[in-house]
Amino acid sequence: MTNRKLTRAKYFFEDSEIEHLTEVPADGNQRMEETDASKVIGKPVSRVDGYNKVSGSALFTFDVNLPRMAHARTLRSPYPHAKIRRIDTSKAEALPGVLAVITHENTSEIPWYFDSFLFDPHLRYAGDEIACVAAETEAIAERALKLIEVDYEVLPFVVDTMKAAEETSPVFHEEGRLVFGEEITYERGDVEAGFAESDVIVEDNYTTQAAVHNPTEPHCSVVKWDGDKLTVWDSTQGIYGVRDEVAERLGLPESHVQVISHYMGGGFGTKLETGKYTVMAALLARKIGRPVRIALTRKEMNLAVGNRPDSLQQLKVGAKKDGTLTAMTTTTYGAAGAYRHRAICYWPIMTMYQCANVQLAAYSTYTNLGKARAFRAPGHPQGTFALDSILDDVAEKIGMNPLEFRLKNYAEIDQVSQRPYTSKKLREAYELGAAKIGWTHRRKTPGSDSGPIKRGLGMASQIWWGSGGPPAAVTVKLNNDGSVRVLAGTQDLGTGTYTILAQTVAEVLEIPVERIQVTIGDTAVGPYCPMSGGSMTAPSVTPAAQDAALQLKDALLSGAATMLEVSEENLIYKDGVIHTASGEKEPLGIADVVQRLRERTLVRTGLRAANPEGFMIQSFGVQFAEVEVDTWTGKVRVIRIVAAHDIGRTLNRKLLENQFHGGIIMGMSYALFEERIVDESTGKVLNTNLHDYKIPTIADTPEIDVITVPHSDTKANSMGAKGCGEPPIIPTAAAIANAVYNAIGVRINSLPITPDKVLNALNA
Amino acid sequence: MTNRKLTRAKYFFEDSEIEHLTEVPADGNQRMEETDASKVIGKPVSRVDGYNKVSGSALFTFDVNLPRMAHARTLRSPYPHAKIRRIDTSKAEALPGVLAVITHENTSEIPWYFDSFLFDPHLRYAGDEIACVAAETEAIAERALKLIEVDYEVLPFVVDTMKAAEETSPVFHEEGRLVFGEEITYERGDVEAGFAESDVIVEDNYTTQAAVHNPTEPHCSVVKWDGDKLTVWDSTQGIYGVRDEVAERLGLPESHVQVISHYMGGGFGTKLETGKYTVMAALLARKIGRPVRIALTRKEMNLAVGNRPDSLQQLKVGAKKDGTLTAMTTTTYGAAGAYRHRAICYWPIMTMYQCANVQLAAYSTYTNLGKARAFRAPGHPQGTFALDSILDDVAEKIGMNPLEFRLKNYAEIDQVSQRPYTSKKLREAYELGAAKIGWTHRRKTPGSDSGPIKRGLGMASQIWWGSGGPPAAVTVKLNNDGSVRVLAGTQDLGTGTYTILAQTVAEVLEIPVERIQVTIGDTAVGPYCPMSGGSMTAPSVTPAAQDAALQLKDALLSGAATMLEVSEENLIYKDGVIHTASGEKEPLGIADVVQRLRERTLVRTGLRAANPEGFMIQSFGVQFAEVEVDTWTGKVRVIRIVAAHDIGRTLNRKLLENQFHGGIIMGMSYALFEERIVDESTGKVLNTNLHDYKIPTIADTPEIDVITVPHSDTKANSMGAKGCGEPPIIPTAAAIANAVYNAIGVRINSLPITPDKVLNALNA
Repeated sequence: MTNRKLTRAKYFFEDSEIEHLTEVPADGNQRMEETDASKVIGKPVSRVDGYNKVSGSALFTFDVNLPRMAHARTLRSPYPHAKIRRIDTSKAEALPGVLAVITHENTSEIPWYFDSFLFDPHLRYAGDEIACVAAETEAIAERALKLIEVDYEVLPFVVDTMKAAEETSPVFHEEGRLVFGEEITYERGDVEAGFAESDVIVEDNYTTQAAVHNPTEPHCSVVKWDGDKLTVWDSTQGIYGVRDEVAERLGLPESHVQVISHYMGGGFGTKLETGKYTVMAALLARKIGRPVRIALTRKEMNLAVGNRPDSLQQLKVGAKKDGTLTAMTTTTYGAAGAYRHRAICYWPIMTMYQCANVQLAAYSTYTNLGKARAFRAPGHPQGTFALDSILDDVAEKIGMNPLEFRLKNYAEIDQVSQRPYTSKKLREAYELGAAKIGWTHRRKTPGSDSGPIKRGLGMASQIWWGSGGPPAAVTVKLNNDGSVRVLAGTQDLGTGTYTILAQTVAEVLEIPVERIQVTIGDTAVGPYCPMSGGSMTAPSVTPAAQDAALQLKDALLSGAATMLEVSEENLIYKDGVIHTASGEKEPLGIADVVQRLRERTLVRTGLRAANPEGFMIQSFGVQFAEVEVDTWTGKVRVIRIVAAHDIGRTLNRKLLENQFHGGIIMGMSYALFEERIVDESTGKVLNTNLHDYKIPTIADTPEIDVITVPHSDTKANSMGAKGCGEPPIIPTAAAIANAVYNAIGVRINSLPITPDKVLNALNA
Repeated sequence: MTNRKLTRAKYFFEDSEIEHLTEVPADGNQRMEETDASKVIGKPVSRVDGYNKVSGSALFTFDVNLPRMAHARTLRSPYPHAKIRRIDTSKAEALPGVLAVITHENTSEIPWYFDSFLFDPHLRYAGDEIACVAAETEAIAERALKLIEVDYEVLPFVVDTMKAAEETSPVFHEEGRLVFGEEITYERGDVEAGFAESDVIVEDNYTTQAAVHNPTEPHCSVVKWDGDKLTVWDSTQGIYGVRDEVAERLGLPESHVQVISHYMGGGFGTKLETGKYTVMAALLARKIGRPVRIALTRKEMNLAVGNRPDSLQQLKVGAKKDGTLTAMTTTTYGAAGAYRHRAICYWPIMTMYQCANVQLAAYSTYTNLGKARAFRAPGHPQGTFALDSILDDVAEKIGMNPLEFRLKNYAEIDQVSQRPYTSKKLREAYELGAAKIGWTHRRKTPGSDSGPIKRGLGMASQIWWGSGGPPAAVTVKLNNDGSVRVLAGTQDLGTGTYTILAQTVAEVLEIPVERIQVTIGDTAVGPYCPMSGGSMTAPSVTPAAQDAALQLKDALLSGAATMLEVSEENLIYKDGVIHTASGEKEPLGIADVVQRLRERTLVRTGLRAANPEGFMIQSFGVQFAEVEVDTWTGKVRVIRIVAAHDIGRTLNRKLLENQFHGGIIMGMSYALFEERIVDESTGKVLNTNLHDYKIPTIADTPEIDVITVPHSDTKANSMGAKGCGEPPIIPTAAAIANAVYNAIGVRINSLPITPDKVLNALNA
């Protein structure tokens, strides 16, 4: 076991390791228009792809139906840990309608994860891939799976996160029981000294459950070969990522793989990685000479494509009577599942509040369960739950209002790097949110409500990688009637990428959104854009679109100057029309200019400017929750959530509210309902369906108020916007937990806060 | 009637009227690599889309099959001239499976041609559109057509080209009996004086027939609405043209219309215009809320989508005994058909040979037949047939070898504009072709063969707008594994656009063609490129692709210079690898460079440089034909064609031969077989099918030798290539006619040279 010390924290979405050799607009970050003057940006523009979705004409991968398309299904390990001694697919192959069966025996060893293969006879969880069948129908493929005979050598397994770290548990990776064989540690200041100078110290343990992403559209791919060229329709969060990985796995040039995802039914992180199923479908399609469709079942989505890892967090916090945090330590454990993944949740404690002395140790253990994956703000909801819970307890102990306590420890600069933020308007968010929820009416004595149903108010803060982002390129084409086509290699998971790209170009060129069409979700068409994860899409692609549109505007002005025989400085661009300042010449519409330019259409590709050096880009927020706890049934009902966030400039008020409502409901669901349940005796997941795995319905949904601090973070990027995909989910569970405490006066340290836990706690 | 005098000839494919306001690479024409050093360009690279076509995976518009797609058929006028008094579609609408019927009564007046509408109750030819039916199947739609009741006011008609000019013939356009109501005239020098100084004068009349394009894939469109956005799959020669016209007709922004034509089964000019059927399908689709497919039958293709107009040409040529041409005059007549089209064929006589005194008058008459359209080298095969026929007669009269006579009158500069050519290597072509065919063995006395089967040799020259072309833009994307995607809004009619674009980029970047994928045929994807007509595709899109690739190379070199810390001058780019001249640093592959650049993928859009000022860009050629005439049956068999052309640089030897073989066979077919036959008493076309309209089979095909003069016209454009789509068809008929004369000693002045004409001529 090595000890990996984070002397300098890794900023996941920073691009500092990339050389900036190519030209990027030097004034990129200064080109932002004034928010006040915005005509389209920030407005509640309806989704430009709304008609297609409502009418059903939007083609999701799940709907792709090609001529002669075959259907594939996957045989998965029934055991949490086993090796394949012998496999016989002959009966399956003999079933009428079966076209091909692939296993580790008849495919080459395609590397997968770090020390495994696409088909690995060493099966490490109940759900690991064994074989894949292509047949005329899904039903035949499913029947064929049952005809595959496998002789297993069943091996000892472990599914408990903590037990997996013990010397007695089975080891099934060379690097041992811990991911990368290592403990992760971080330390700043002197925690011993910090605790020594504290007036109060609180210690507590917190646990959070493993949760499953459950996007609406199942994971699916449809693949088609044309000779050595492969087209992949894929329900993915990153068309370019899938293209590059499929090309690598299959030994193809990237140009020979085209990945299409025009419409997508949600991802939340589970569709960031390339699916084994995609590559299996490609192998089958090549074998049978027909297109192949593969779609995962809800059960497979539960087992095989990731989860938010569970956590055990042991926290200790010291503070002075005046509220100053003096020291914080945490030791965290989380299960990676069967393959490499860092199950970490320490970022909030490292950065959320000002504290000179912080120490942590983190362990990710291997268990015989499906691998964890990034899930909406990886690590942050669990870390925030623990941190903001214990802070409330500290505040109570020193008799301080939780909000006041947080303001007392407000971090003005990044606590790890000591760098300034491009912007931080959390103080304003606290103020706006507290006013909205009526924070001053919060009961000072927890559980002081009379009667069986008790109300409580709670709050929690949020920090997230804001809008730093990798490079993105967007092409904008101006037609000769002045209408526009936008092309980008990005994708729309349902978050509104189509719409914000159209708005961005409409804003710069001062033309109606209705004259702009956006084509995304196709690697053969759009220039490179990053995957849609880490709340990166809006802050990476809109600055690139803006840059392209500004280049077009420059070309139009330059062309018009020649046509009107005036200097560019004497031209005024307004509402898509170019006027001479003096009014002496007839104005030119942009269509007039384009028609007289030699290109006939003007095409410009814009690039996102590099992140500013020396700054941290983070988004911030606070959520206030009001809950009602029925002390007879133990049931918690969330009445209201007020979310007040600093996400920079609002690009589209409607889409922003969509994101916040979705994130907050998902956060509430995490707080109260969702939990993957594993049977320790068999190593199997027991609730691999949406009947037993509980998600909320509309009846469970609280009133939600979304407040954004009105400002534009023009230091962060030229659009001034920080991402808002993940921030909404981060503080919700912690705020609810604190509200529950405020309602009943008993702390629930374990998510989800189910009625049995509430009743047990009340009884204790 | 106005008299339109061509004081300055209109150069159809010149872009001199377009302002050159935007940046084009100033050294565009100097960037061409040496032909000798070419690694990919010029080589017989197989079609990169070959697999898709052979395997059947290439999706032609005809094959597009969308869910819920309805089928449309068109009711056409049975009369050559009539007005609709009353139309009743109720019975058709009542037929089960019929979804909608549109006519002039229930659609708005959408302008079409210059003074007509999409549905015009004034029917001007037997085939004019009356109604369009959408139904569940084509068969139901066809049945429904018979249930539409139309009460016609039948009007007098004219189908004869010459009669149509007479005062007694019906007038059905405001502008009268002539297109634009005008005679076209041109004059240079003094023809009176020219004839006066001549030693011999020959006068003769020539007629050519109307011919039909007959591409393999029928004209067809599949249209789909998504709200107010329209996707059109269309078998077209110009995706952008269709996009712009459909948008205009339907009142949509251009961005809202996406036209797709990934694979196309030939056009020859008939698919340059936007089809009425496309717009009718769009109207039906909007009405029924379903996609609509419309495909023309062979009969409709014969009637309604154009033809090569017939011609009557009255020529008079004077020459001195030494061979010097002293004067040429021509009066030409041709039928536009029912709507505006200039049926002109005078360009060869104006420009092919040096002659100081030339005069012409041209008339295009309106007839009640389908409108003519551009057809592979519009006007040139008919003009060349007359010109090169009469020149042979003049040469014989002065006792001069036809080749010597042509060399005597070799035009060193453009005869109309007096501008120099960018290149003219016709002299070399004459020499190479004559050697290959064995011209010296030509019988000096025509018809001197003994026996009933007589052999003869003939020749004819060719001039064609070479490679001047409108602007074109091509985007090239370099992936981070060094593979490439090329994007362009051009199309591949079967001519090889996919392949030459890949070759061009491969040549510049020095990488294998196999690492390049080309995406064309989609207006939503590729930047603007011109329609594929006028032999413009190769000379317009390849220079743009070259420019983009050169920009990429510059970016790679600049990036590598920074990475290797050397100046760009000290770098050597070879085979996709960048070396330091000194060899001191480790070389960088292009993938290495791209991966370290911030964009991750490098995207550059290239533009074709403007045509050189002050020059004429023309292609030239000569064809030699050897024929066998059976004087008992009158049957002409073409034994061999030697084609020797100056088309600048050869881009791909295989594709070039494809083009030449196709063009020459089509030219031979025009010379001997094809003819649209019209019944004068009913005004109907009698042979609207491929049984009665004769086209050649493989058994009729001669041996063909294709020779290109090895050179590169770097003055014309940066690729050095002139177009070669149309040149091959131009001189074939004339060369065959001259060979027939050489075989039998009797001149056939009328195309096609059918056995009856040969026998009649021999008997006369």
